[in-house]
Amino acid sequence: MSKKNKGFVQQITDMDGDFAQWYTDVVKQADLIDYGPVRGTMIMKPYGYALWEHIRDVLDNRIKQTGHSNVQFPLFIPESLLQKEKDHIEGFAPEVAWVTHGGSEELHERLVVRPTSEVLFCDYYARNIHSYRDLPMLYNQWANVVRWEKTTRPFLRSLEFQWQEGHTAHATHEEAEIETRQMLDVYTEIVENQLAIPVIRGTKTENEKFAGAVYTLTIESLMHDGKALQSGTSHHLGTGFAESFNITYLDEKGTQNHVHQTSWGITTRLIGALIMVHGDQSGLVLPPKVAPTQAILIPIAQHKDGVLDKARAILHQLTPHIRIQLDDSDKTPGWKFNEHEMKGVPIRIELGPKDIEKNQAVLVRRDTREKIIVSLEALPTALTQLLETIQSDLYQTAKEKQLAKTTSVSSFVEFAASLTSNPGFIRAMWCGETACEKAIKEQTGATARCIPFEQASLSEHCVYCGKEAQKEVYWAKAY
Amino acid sequence: MSKKNKGFVQQITDMDGDFAQWYTDVVKQADLIDYGPVRGTMIMKPYGYALWEHIRDVLDNRIKQTGHSNVQFPLFIPESLLQKEKDHIEGFAPEVAWVTHGGSEELHERLVVRPTSEVLFCDYYARNIHSYRDLPMLYNQWANVVRWEKTTRPFLRSLEFQWQEGHTAHATHEEAEIETRQMLDVYTEIVENQLAIPVIRGTKTENEKFAGAVYTLTIESLMHDGKALQSGTSHHLGTGFAESFNITYLDEKGTQNHVHQTSWGITTRLIGALIMVHGDQSGLVLPPKVAPTQAILIPIAQHKDGVLDKARAILHQLTPHIRIQLDDSDKTPGWKFNEHEMKGVPIRIELGPKDIEKNQAVLVRRDTREKIIVSLEALPTALTQLLETIQSDLYQTAKEKQLAKTTSVSSFVEFAASLTSNPGFIRAMWCGETACEKAIKEQTGATARCIPFEQASLSEHCVYCGKEAQKEVYWAKAY
Ligand SMILES: [Zn+2]
Ligand SMILES: [Zn+2]
Repeated sequence: MSKKNKGFVQQITDMDGDFAQWYTDVVKQADLIDYGPVRGTMIMKPYGYALWEHIRDVLDNRIKQTGHSNVQFPLFIPESLLQKEKDHIEGFAPEVAWVTHGGSEELHERLVVRPTSEVLFCDYYARNIHSYRDLPMLYNQWANVVRWEKTTRPFLRSLEFQWQEGHTAHATHEEAEIETRQMLDVYTEIVENQLAIPVIRGTKTENEKFAGAVYTLTIESLMHDGKALQSGTSHHLGTGFAESFNITYLDEKGTQNHVHQTSWGITTRLIGALIMVHGDQSGLVLPPKVAPTQAILIPIAQHKDGVLDKARAILHQLTPHIRIQLDDSDKTPGWKFNEHEMKGVPIRIELGPKDIEKNQAVLVRRDTREKIIVSLEALPTALTQLLETIQSDLYQTAKEKQLAKTTSVSSFVEFAASLTSNPGFIRAMWCGETACEKAIKEQTGATARCIPFEQASLSEHCVYCGKEAQKEVYWAKAY
Repeated sequence: MSKKNKGFVQQITDMDGDFAQWYTDVVKQADLIDYGPVRGTMIMKPYGYALWEHIRDVLDNRIKQTGHSNVQFPLFIPESLLQKEKDHIEGFAPEVAWVTHGGSEELHERLVVRPTSEVLFCDYYARNIHSYRDLPMLYNQWANVVRWEKTTRPFLRSLEFQWQEGHTAHATHEEAEIETRQMLDVYTEIVENQLAIPVIRGTKTENEKFAGAVYTLTIESLMHDGKALQSGTSHHLGTGFAESFNITYLDEKGTQNHVHQTSWGITTRLIGALIMVHGDQSGLVLPPKVAPTQAILIPIAQHKDGVLDKARAILHQLTPHIRIQLDDSDKTPGWKFNEHEMKGVPIRIELGPKDIEKNQAVLVRRDTREKIIVSLEALPTALTQLLETIQSDLYQTAKEKQLAKTTSVSSFVEFAASLTSNPGFIRAMWCGETACEKAIKEQTGATARCIPFEQASLSEHCVYCGKEAQKEVYWAKAY
């Protein structure tokens, strides 16, 4: 190994032996992040941030198409403001960062670094909503938030993370309901179509819902190790915040009413999901739609006459069609193969003297390693089609893995056993009692991920207490 | 005035009577911002944030075209890290916010909410730069920063603001010099071509340079009231930070060297500049290139048969060409005129029954109020051309105002007098002594804005002490 390559593409941990360590290795080796100087903070490096930009840009476009406007609210929340909504402060107070001094002076009132911004939007709505004509208010912001987590992992749980938070106010409960569901649909579309990650859609239990919400809708995805990851949530806040903050509007009949609110968000956690759903023993595997580089062109025997010239001509030809890069560094082809596999580039294009002679290039799929020989003229079309195929295959593969890791059970013995024999989603009936839900969590570590929209009747009895079943629930250990 | 319009398009303060109050009125009436619950913080409302998005997107594109990658560094800086560079901590310590508690626990080490991120990038560079092959490192981030300012004004000086901060590391002093200048050129291009704001380009004096820099380049613009506003800065950091943080690389000959760094930034202050350069007694005047809405279509007698249908057809026809909106609300045309004038929409399109009969529309320029009658077929071309004309006219008008408010003086008596008789830029020679610069500031309130790149020899003597002149300097009272 040449000296200059020191530190890159080292062996990574076996993913089936120690998945957590494999994850950490991939995150570092694929050049996604570095650690910040404060415990639990991370630096999103160019490759990791480009991935986020691709997710963000598509979602931002959908958020605007659905009638929302971007805004930017402040980072700091006065302590008294956070305390206005009782459930909310109880949910967040244990995990916030406190600003106590500005310059050399101690502040009269402590400030919270926003863990989420409901109370800031409520305070604004209370001052700015007067009449039904002001409704709906459809706001979104891209922002950093801080939660003082004890144990942290890059992307999955960090002291500070990037996210998008939507905050809306409506005239009626039904309008807020439609909004809550619409944004879950948008998230589903992004996560399934862009990230190629299949999700289970449903409602959170009372116990798992957002602090201060009437109900929380969620999309849940399943990682390679059988653990679930909450991938996006959309909350119907009802009138609870509006009552605490006195957010009212005058309707057409001249009556004062409280507004009905929603909030919804996705975070950089989605990058963690990408890694853990599609990744393999060689590193990242990125879906073409969000891959910063969709194809990497690697010249073979690049010192030979004409190879680099031809490679550059092909790069030039393909640039309008796909996100392509040429690796003409002085590393060996084998080294480059490993490096771009680690980074999950969907297609490798190999071009050597013999290929040029035959007027062809070799395409290698990152996901299946399949090799496809294509004539140079056919490259733009072949690549565009192959990217689409990879995108759809990644989704299919992930869906099959998710189904294979999903077990329907009708007894608690089966429930507990399946967590070891086939870690993943457990579908089981539930009586609706929080006591049962908590007992299951305590005894197995699995939590209620969601009450799926599409309900099946697997049994007539609660999997834990045996009483009459009310709902089918997806359970899993979760990140 | 109908009740539902209450609160909008009220009379604003006379701009030549009380410019500060006019500014505050415009910022609120044009719906750019609201105030946050913490003193000195602001909420960027949809219209204000859309303006920022237009500036950001163009600049982001240029930053990427010039070879930089976006990254995202953490919000928090450990106190010990900030203290590593002596000048830097002295410059920033008095105005930072301190996090002292996380959850219910007091932290072992206080954290600073980033006022700027040099030390975070330096800490990263020290760990990640090893060889000349790692250079240059060309990073940028879009982020929020916090400075604990005593007196604040929306956009101009706030506790928290949005900005872009570039941080680069290079092998040589010369490369860093080229980078520093290149980014000032990019800023010049954005501010002059997109925002239509003419700037004076130059170097800051030692006294005014960035804390920790070898030198600071700046673009300075002039507001309607004759005060200057620093609109973008680019710092050559030399090896000072590299020495404090031990950032070294091995060159091709095997020698360890310190890297040479730069940093550069522009902020939401630019929105303040837009307001104060182009605004008039009716509110905002936006340059077409950054205007969220470039043309507003206002139907006249919209209740009459066919008017709204025709307006919608025209909207549909024009949407691919320009950023256009139709105001079909039930407000009166006069009310709509005022509202969109306040918001600075570059062109108003009036369309009434008589216009439809004559197959025409009336275009009204926001900047000059000029009315232009255009046949409906010619609308796309006429609008596109008119937007270009407005963009270029706004720049010309601003340039003429800037020149008219620029006075060359050769004595301190003239200097002091011109600050009252014609507030604006004062061009005067300087001996290079900080003592003179500080005396001028104390006695007049004017600061050295920059030592312009294009030097004139106005006199052989320093305007203050009479000693031999070294440099021409642009002076002004400043925001
Ligand atoms: Zn039960
Ligand atoms: Zn002097």
